[in-house]
Amino acid sequence: MQPVGPEAEKLVLVMVGLPARGKSYTARKVARYLTWLGYRTRVFNVGEYRRARFGAKVAHDFFDPENAHGREARRTAAMAALADLQQWLRRDGDVAIYDATNSTVERRAMVRERCTLAGFDVLYLEIFCEDEAQIDATVRETKLTSPDYAGVPEATAIADFRARIAHYERAYEPLQEDEGSYLRVKNRGEHVTAHRVHGYVASRLGFLLMNLHLNDRPIWLTRHGESMFNVAGLIGGDADLSPDGQRYAHSLADHLDACYPDTDALKIWTSSLRRALQTANPLGRKSTSWRALDEIDAGVCDGMSYAQIEAEMPDEYAARQHDKFTYRYPRGESYVDVIHRLDPVIIEIERVRRPVLVIAHQAVLRALYAYFMGVEPERCPHLPIPLHTVIKLTPHAYGCHEERVPLEPNTAASGTGGDRASRHASQ
Amino acid sequence: MQPVGPEAEKLVLVMVGLPARGKSYTARKVARYLTWLGYRTRVFNVGEYRRARFGAKVAHDFFDPENAHGREARRTAAMAALADLQQWLRRDGDVAIYDATNSTVERRAMVRERCTLAGFDVLYLEIFCEDEAQIDATVRETKLTSPDYAGVPEATAIADFRARIAHYERAYEPLQEDEGSYLRVKNRGEHVTAHRVHGYVASRLGFLLMNLHLNDRPIWLTRHGESMFNVAGLIGGDADLSPDGQRYAHSLADHLDACYPDTDALKIWTSSLRRALQTANPLGRKSTSWRALDEIDAGVCDGMSYAQIEAEMPDEYAARQHDKFTYRYPRGESYVDVIHRLDPVIIEIERVRRPVLVIAHQAVLRALYAYFMGVEPERCPHLPIPLHTVIKLTPHAYGCHEERVPLEPNTAASGTGGDRASRHASQ
Repeated sequence: MQPVGPEAEKLVLVMVGLPARGKSYTARKVARYLTWLGYRTRVFNVGEYRRARFGAKVAHDFFDPENAHGREARRTAAMAALADLQQWLRRDGDVAIYDATNSTVERRAMVRERCTLAGFDVLYLEIFCEDEAQIDATVRETKLTSPDYAGVPEATAIADFRARIAHYERAYEPLQEDEGSYLRVKNRGEHVTAHRVHGYVASRLGFLLMNLHLNDRPIWLTRHGESMFNVAGLIGGDADLSPDGQRYAHSLADHLDACYPDTDALKIWTSSLRRALQTANPLGRKSTSWRALDEIDAGVCDGMSYAQIEAEMPDEYAARQHDKFTYRYPRGESYVDVIHRLDPVIIEIERVRRPVLVIAHQAVLRALYAYFMGVEPERCPHLPIPLHTVIKLTPHAYGCHEERVPLEPNTAASGTGGDRASRHASQ
Repeated sequence: MQPVGPEAEKLVLVMVGLPARGKSYTARKVARYLTWLGYRTRVFNVGEYRRARFGAKVAHDFFDPENAHGREARRTAAMAALADLQQWLRRDGDVAIYDATNSTVERRAMVRERCTLAGFDVLYLEIFCEDEAQIDATVRETKLTSPDYAGVPEATAIADFRARIAHYERAYEPLQEDEGSYLRVKNRGEHVTAHRVHGYVASRLGFLLMNLHLNDRPIWLTRHGESMFNVAGLIGGDADLSPDGQRYAHSLADHLDACYPDTDALKIWTSSLRRALQTANPLGRKSTSWRALDEIDAGVCDGMSYAQIEAEMPDEYAARQHDKFTYRYPRGESYVDVIHRLDPVIIEIERVRRPVLVIAHQAVLRALYAYFMGVEPERCPHLPIPLHTVIKLTPHAYGCHEERVPLEPNTAASGTGGDRASRHASQ
């Protein structure tokens, strides 16, 4: 998959920061975003190398900088991770994230030198937190469930981990301006600094890093109600809702009215197409229409059925079957194109703090779903996003909790049923 | 014009910084960018109010914080500008930029309070510079040409301005984290900090602010060579070049080969359409194809002539004549849509330091041209971007220098001429 930017770079993102500041959380979030944008991205976590080589159960004095054995063992793990990182980046990757404390100038200089010699760009990503409550929450949420403390009583684990942090604090040297390009994030995005950041990938991350707070309000995704084109088995177009589709719009309104009686509590975004606007209508609430949410553009195939494409354009049909992800309709779009134009939508969803309802289309919702659920983008074209089902995604530390609510079209609304068999004609 | 973001905000950007740090340069650049994106943006420069009320020729001691008369006069000018700003923002604007030193905590608190009471969001934009050579260059480039020093010998003007800066330096209090949301830019984008930045407009600015260095390498804009659709007077499509178009591609290659013998010295970006790719071809250099550079999507009118649209879709034809800027082709795009999708291209052009050649299409180039030349976006549809002419834009402090080079199709290349009369069929 080609990256979104005009030119690919081989980049090493070197995490910097004390334990329990949110490095791994940030590394994963960044990796998910860059992967979704088409960069082959992988996190190399030095803690995992250390556990694989020296076992999970090591006491805090392993991390004491005065402990020569521990220091050497930790260095060995760090070097092994770095060697794997370089090999992967050279052969298969676009962006590698080196997830370790990298807490001294000396260590960072060594990592930088090795990466630069190998021809990679280096960007530090320092995670800084002075909010004790936040640090405490991170320790409890992530470290207690770490293999390092499996089976260890909570109080013991916390005391040990606090002692481990103290060892690092003694040696910690915050990033200096003369060390090179960096992004520094303080208190989960409250304060973000970019120093000598010029690369394309790096400059894409600023937005995301301003929104690292855990935004756990739900995101609701739904396709428009069944349209007359769905009934006829045609793709694209700008058709009205079918009678069944109208009834779904009423069911959706009932469901969301019950969840959010306060009309300002939910943001509603639709595409600019009639079937999406008509689906929002019975809600009777303010909504915003985004062209970026319009369905994948089927180009010259717009308004055709799949059978017709197969009969009249067999080469196109075959090319699409062969690789539905990168296939671009003649004069239209591919899934890759759709992902790129959805980037501002993702950034905006990450930014707003209120629940959001997105009323859009199959291909577009597959792409949004892939971002939130961390699905490889290549699997997008095969994700099931059925009609007349609202999907509720609730973010948590490392992903989203998913709930699917099929809503029967509200029979209290007027109209007669369409042909349901054709509902699942798939873009 | 609707703004690019899903929700409009009324925002006051309050500049902060000592004289000659680049506040006005930044304010203008930000205003140009936001205007282009569709936000009604205006800069209110307190210096202009001061000159209008108290005359341009005041000696540096007018700016001495110990000078009660000068202090009161400057405060009067500042309040008059703020009152006008508020009135404009309430009635007509989206983003107002308050361009003054705002160098004390007290002054900023007062400005913030007045704006907040009026219901506006406030974001500080602090311009900080510790590079003496840069400050000196700003003094020489901008202050010597200011009305404040019209007719004053250079050495006298510089000495007076330095004394003026010194007065401000005595009173200057850098922004503190508890003062609210801010963006701080140091040394022309080398170092950018975002503190509690959550608004959509504000978060759009990060990219731009990372690239405030004066990037004076030229940007070359050209339409593809004449296409077979141009010859036939049809809009849209994905036609091949005409013989004349092919000859233009060769002339373009000759011209740029002469300007940039080093093949790495020029970045070449094309749209993804055949006529643009074929125009890049004779250059024989690496180029990048962007879908974002594709011509305005004429939707259902793609492949028609204007006469045909007038005959078959008179309402559409009339709507387009009435407002060519916001008119959206059925199932296609408007100029407003084109501007929004070009945003990443602008950001990327601002970022790269090498000369860039953009081979694209009439509507797309009108939108890019409007950004660089600071033309109101509403005028986009009427900007002349003829075929077979390369436009060279060279940025300087407050805009771009423009040069247009009409290139005769290279008759050394093969093929016969097309019908030139139809070249100017206008999107």
